[in-house]
Amino acid sequence: MASNIITLTTDMGNKDYYVASIKGTLYSKSPSCNVVDISHEIKPFDIAHASYVLKNCFLDFPAGTVHIVGVNPESTEQTKHIAILYKGHFFVGADNGFFALLCDQDLLEQVVEIKINEASDGNLSFPTKNIFVDVALSISSRQSLNAIGLPRAQNSIVRKQLFRPTAEETVIKGTVSYIDTYGNIITNIHKNLFDEVGKGKVFNIYLTRAGYMITKIHKKYSEVPEGEKIAIFSSTGMLEIAINKGVEGSGGGASKLFGIKLNDTITIEFSDLKNKQVV
Amino acid sequence: MASNIITLTTDMGNKDYYVASIKGTLYSKSPSCNVVDISHEIKPFDIAHASYVLKNCFLDFPAGTVHIVGVNPESTEQTKHIAILYKGHFFVGADNGFFALLCDQDLLEQVVEIKINEASDGNLSFPTKNIFVDVALSISSRQSLNAIGLPRAQNSIVRKQLFRPTAEETVIKGTVSYIDTYGNIITNIHKNLFDEVGKGKVFNIYLTRAGYMITKIHKKYSEVPEGEKIAIFSSTGMLEIAINKGVEGSGGGASKLFGIKLNDTITIEFSDLKNKQVV
Amino acid sequence: MASNIITLTTDMGNKDYYVASIKGTLYSKSPSCNVVDISHEIKPFDIAHASYVLKNCFLDFPAGTVHIVGVNPESTEQTKHIAILYKGHFFVGADNGFFALLCDQDLLEQVVEIKINEASDGNLSFPTKNIFVDVALSISSRQSLNAIGLPRAQNSIVRKQLFRPTAEETVIKGTVSYIDTYGNIITNIHKNLFDEVGKGKVFNIYLTRAGYMITKIHKKYSEVPEGEKIAIFSSTGMLEIAINKGVEGSGGGASKLFGIKLNDTITIEFSDLKNKQVV
Repeated sequence: MASNIITLTTDMGNKDYYVASIKGTLYSKSPSCNVVDISHEIKPFDIAHASYVLKNCFLDFPAGTVHIVGVNPESTEQTKHIAILYKGHFFVGADNGFFALLCDQDLLEQVVEIKINEASDGNLSFPTKNIFVDVALSISSRQSLNAIGLPRAQNSIVRKQLFRPTAEETVIKGTVSYIDTYGNIITNIHKNLFDEVGKGKVFNIYLTRAGYMITKIHKKYSEVPEGEKIAIFSSTGMLEIAINKGVEGSGGGASKLFGIKLNDTITIEFSDLKNKQVV
Repeated sequence: MASNIITLTTDMGNKDYYVASIKGTLYSKSPSCNVVDISHEIKPFDIAHASYVLKNCFLDFPAGTVHIVGVNPESTEQTKHIAILYKGHFFVGADNGFFALLCDQDLLEQVVEIKINEASDGNLSFPTKNIFVDVALSISSRQSLNAIGLPRAQNSIVRKQLFRPTAEETVIKGTVSYIDTYGNIITNIHKNLFDEVGKGKVFNIYLTRAGYMITKIHKKYSEVPEGEKIAIFSSTGMLEIAINKGVEGSGGGASKLFGIKLNDTITIEFSDLKNKQVV
Repeated sequence: MASNIITLTTDMGNKDYYVASIKGTLYSKSPSCNVVDISHEIKPFDIAHASYVLKNCFLDFPAGTVHIVGVNPESTEQTKHIAILYKGHFFVGADNGFFALLCDQDLLEQVVEIKINEASDGNLSFPTKNIFVDVALSISSRQSLNAIGLPRAQNSIVRKQLFRPTAEETVIKGTVSYIDTYGNIITNIHKNLFDEVGKGKVFNIYLTRAGYMITKIHKKYSEVPEGEKIAIFSSTGMLEIAINKGVEGSGGGASKLFGIKLNDTITIEFSDLKNKQVV
């Protein structure tokens, strides 16, 4: 069965009327759709934040879900409105770099440029409501991009690169890609890369700026005492540095305690010794 | 088809149990209703904020939607509980001035005073839950105010005036009525008034306190470079002064950059010269 | 009819992908469930806050509702994952003391320890999504705990005590158990205890730290002028000290004005004189 879910990811906050206007319009045009908030607390204009959040949760929704992205949504010559099909999910937004950050481009199934009817599409300063809603509902009911606009090549989306980790024989250099609500430090180093380079060897994880080092990866925060630092692979497979039950304002949070910021370097050095720790 | 949507507009925030109590009560009494949050981040007791938000989005919802307003909700001799019908939508709240700010009184279709049964209406300090919920569900199922209470004259609601712009032959003086999440400055000057007084002439918009001036109105934020000031008519038709991609905490936001505050004066002077700019 | 509502109470905030992941998983596995947010703004790791919020609103939801509690959710030897049946409602979480704060243990109807299948239950650092969702959906569809795990004795849950008021012949000593969004001071003194000890006598309520005293209890905030202090029994029966329309940042809020903090002492002394006030 097709999904009737439309999700919203915006930087609009919840104190204004903007989000309610979008929801009202969706329910007016399609009383049976199910509108689900991903987040309205994306940092203003921050497509890296938006792509991080959506990338890590969209696959938890049913295939066929349509995701509206209301961050930097205006259309310009350089940032056309597009809709894409990726891993069985539909996304609608402006081609401002967000889609390149969201997708592995090789797996992009379909890209179409949205036809804009300037006469009927209402106020241009609020396209999330005046354009994306109609497009999303049309996609949701047909479960297809075919009626939305002109096909574009998969490799035509606006490129934007996230920092990627570099790997040498026994060293991985990554960066901090996100700091979450708890002050946890999320890196761009995936468990797959770690396993591939590490091959089970012993290792040191260096928080370069902080001068700290971690030598073990745990499975649950509670495997270390409260207030202790811990490395863990998050539920989405990324290496994460945290303080068990530490949080900004109540005694820590790893980012604050270590003075670690977005884009800081994280280095992992593997030794030739086999790791004898039971992980 | 009638709307089964009940919306909530409150100043209760989301860290307490108050909003959940209201939603639980709604779903207990009417499992098939669709509860939609307008906002729970109205500034405490601020009926001007509440009316601004609801006024700008309620028409996006289906006709017949019932809007519960939980801001200053207590009933007193001066602020009775009422329900109204306005532009095909129902509203329930205390007559504390909110309704006068929301409505063009000439277009108010119906006003009734809610009958309160003190014995059965539970704790009086939480009327949004203990009174408005039952009233809203009754209105929603009947799509009528008739069973709710005694009719009142349309002109009997408690008056509260928003600042209105003044217009002379070639000058409009307005005020700042709202500052949004992005730091955008929303004025009380509507496009209709601007067009009527301006008649296509060239103009200067003066941010009086700031000493800045703007001479053009654009259609999209992205028509000016990032960080540049811009005037635009918002999606609801009000003159808005913004900084393209400027926001508090990340480089600006018009209100901060210009030092503009709520209720500050905005003056527009039209010249006798015809405007030759292509807008 | 059974409730199809699943509620969420977490400390995850709304700027990350965590809550959306949980909702997506719920809707993927059960398209017809109704997911309702209680709050995602519980203070990080604060089970007292979580229990306060949920205790005060869960009975407003339909019987048979399943409440997922994502605060300190990891399972350890000391804090097993459990599900309980209490007053006709189901709750799923870690037995970290939250349940003892939520329940009157004598009224606990059923406790089961959740069977964890480590092989299939995914990442252990995100049990709210990877374990509680499946358990909650299973309970919701069967309206029973029987298939979830092994029964445990009602008195086996991890004990945690909230401060309780002490009562002597003419004195009640309580504490501040919560400060809400408006800065209202909620005590742990219930109307029942007040009536039982007070027997209608005149009384003084002492805000010990602040040196203030209140001698009357009102029914509505608006029974005193704006900015005036007031004692009231909240909608859940607890003694509350407030400032009518006072709020932090706009002129007060009782907690700030009186310098009152969580766990501060509140003393009520009853006199032998009968109270002649009409309350």
